[in-house]
Amino acid sequence: MKVPKGFLFAAVEAKIKYQDRPDLGLIFSERPAYCAGVFTTNDFQAAPVILGRRRVAAGKARAILVNSGCANACTGEEGLRDAERLTEYLARELKISPEEVLPASTGVIGSRLPVERIASRIPDLVRELTPEKASLVARAMMTTDTFPKIAVRSLESQGRTFTLMGLAKGAGMIAPHMATMLAFLLTDAGLTPSLLQPLLQESVSVTFNRITVDGDTSTNDTVYLLANGASGELDQTEQAKFGQILQEVCQELAYLIVKDGEGATKVVRLRVEGARDTEEALRLARAVADSPLVKTALFGEDPNWGRILVAMGKLGLGLPLEKISVYLEDIPLVSKGSGTPYEEAAQAAMRRPEFTLRIELGLGKASAEILTCDLSTEYVKINAEYRT
Amino acid sequence: MKVPKGFLFAAVEAKIKYQDRPDLGLIFSERPAYCAGVFTTNDFQAAPVILGRRRVAAGKARAILVNSGCANACTGEEGLRDAERLTEYLARELKISPEEVLPASTGVIGSRLPVERIASRIPDLVRELTPEKASLVARAMMTTDTFPKIAVRSLESQGRTFTLMGLAKGAGMIAPHMATMLAFLLTDAGLTPSLLQPLLQESVSVTFNRITVDGDTSTNDTVYLLANGASGELDQTEQAKFGQILQEVCQELAYLIVKDGEGATKVVRLRVEGARDTEEALRLARAVADSPLVKTALFGEDPNWGRILVAMGKLGLGLPLEKISVYLEDIPLVSKGSGTPYEEAAQAAMRRPEFTLRIELGLGKASAEILTCDLSTEYVKINAEYRT
Repeated sequence: MKVPKGFLFAAVEAKIKYQDRPDLGLIFSERPAYCAGVFTTNDFQAAPVILGRRRVAAGKARAILVNSGCANACTGEEGLRDAERLTEYLARELKISPEEVLPASTGVIGSRLPVERIASRIPDLVRELTPEKASLVARAMMTTDTFPKIAVRSLESQGRTFTLMGLAKGAGMIAPHMATMLAFLLTDAGLTPSLLQPLLQESVSVTFNRITVDGDTSTNDTVYLLANGASGELDQTEQAKFGQILQEVCQELAYLIVKDGEGATKVVRLRVEGARDTEEALRLARAVADSPLVKTALFGEDPNWGRILVAMGKLGLGLPLEKISVYLEDIPLVSKGSGTPYEEAAQAAMRRPEFTLRIELGLGKASAEILTCDLSTEYVKINAEYRT
Repeated sequence: MKVPKGFLFAAVEAKIKYQDRPDLGLIFSERPAYCAGVFTTNDFQAAPVILGRRRVAAGKARAILVNSGCANACTGEEGLRDAERLTEYLARELKISPEEVLPASTGVIGSRLPVERIASRIPDLVRELTPEKASLVARAMMTTDTFPKIAVRSLESQGRTFTLMGLAKGAGMIAPHMATMLAFLLTDAGLTPSLLQPLLQESVSVTFNRITVDGDTSTNDTVYLLANGASGELDQTEQAKFGQILQEVCQELAYLIVKDGEGATKVVRLRVEGARDTEEALRLARAVADSPLVKTALFGEDPNWGRILVAMGKLGLGLPLEKISVYLEDIPLVSKGSGTPYEEAAQAAMRRPEFTLRIELGLGKASAEILTCDLSTEYVKINAEYRT
């Protein structure tokens, strides 16, 4: 796996909640780096989000400290102090300023971090930093995730190679229209903060913000982007290309999050076309993607198009049924408002682990896509037993 | 069971989808009756909704023909003709006008009604009419319901007794803010259409419109109210009292629908208090009541208050965490934004099949209540296998 130059990684077991697996990760840039960040829009922001947002505003960062097992959310002033103290310990060990450490936490809401136990592991964490351990950090971030999520792209230009790596976690409490989950994007390309932040926002809005597992939004959602310039500064043409690979990496991580959706057995590309505007297409796609009845039908491999129509109809947008067609891959399920005789073929296609469901409204030219997954008995089990 | 005077009931097996159980029901008023109706706000209205709405507008009806197993929804002009033909057959047998027959269907969306088979059972249906069989009609309406839903109230006034009976079905595709499910309300009290419709709307808005099983809204939701005046006209004082028992009957049926929520093991009275206005209280109550993460935690008997806060926070209303308290029955779970040491007591209370979850926002004086249920593995199984 190609790693962006100048970035080091380490992860250790701090036994915050999980046993026998890393749960505390560190990403460190050997040289100063510019940063950008996108955070949850939930009213209740976790301590690491409050602190991280403040530090991202300064535009520079060299380290990301991440833990799983405890979200440090709804923990008030004390939780904020916990996050500050841990980043201070780490900064001292790394010989950098605490302002250059970005915190991230994920896990149970409402519990305090075991600060002493985590602090006691920080010297080991720093000692073990190496370019080789990015996937171990991706493991340390996991909660109900079943696999670590990493995506890498390179940009070759004028004899130089720029690398962009993304690490993410996320499986539940995943909803669109916000920066959901944790994702860290690292590049050795040189970009200024004034470019980084809009580039990141643009990529997030069409990738992480267009997925859903269960329509719920976490208190801890964070995407950090660090650019340390170790491979040189980007010129204007390269910046545009960089924006492209940034979106590709975000899209790949977003896809992996849905693929690893809690209990998910299907990834469904839900496309709404022929809407009057993009917002309408998105609202309808989300309504279908979040309908428990649609999601259980996907799990049951049942091309139950009635539920798809119902989920759109409940928004009351005044959709004319006689214009609507629904396709599963290329198989027409609904044609101009009426069911077709192709349900059996559609059912066969639904046995695949991934497919596209395309809704054609016939009203206009706008379209939007949401990545979603099914709702399985396993999702219920995972979430009924999460804290026990 | 006390039945309102002048109403007869019958149900037969028409084998529309289900076998060995009644699936075709008839309610008949021996004398002319006034009627009112409230219907789904879903864009895609089923044929019986379109026809029923038209007939309710005339203000008079004497019969309700209901079937389960097929919703006659998304069936276009042909579906509408099917519904018209069946009500014509029935009207001929009953020697009334087709305009006085209100249709209602529930079941699979997108399938046509087996008109000939249903029509062939209509003579038997009419022959078997009796005041005794209201519960058989309630059975004929059931789809994934596990028990028939009937509620009765009487009003004693000036030596007269007025009776109001309600029959309902509903277990899935149940969402608030609309007239969800099927419910038929029958009374021998005399009321004019100009009174019936507003009384019904008022009752529905605070009962059926404040429950949720899965946040989805059907194409067939219908509430009919028939008043045949067999026990005499109501004076103004009696009308007010009637409004009260109408609300009580609606509330009891709404409760029974949530209790019978698909796969539900808990009924939860979700109360939001201290909101700035009722709409805010309702929006927050609905967000919590429809959150899959909250609902799975209810199933797991886990007082996971973090998920309750998250569900409210995602609306982005700017709620101040430090003012919010959450109570399970009288046990404080969150006190002014912080977790309490009473989680164990709360967990014990959650083992009960019914309890109240009360959220105090501390912002104002408005409040609202939503009845909801948990999300169980059984819900997923029922809905993954519904059509198979």
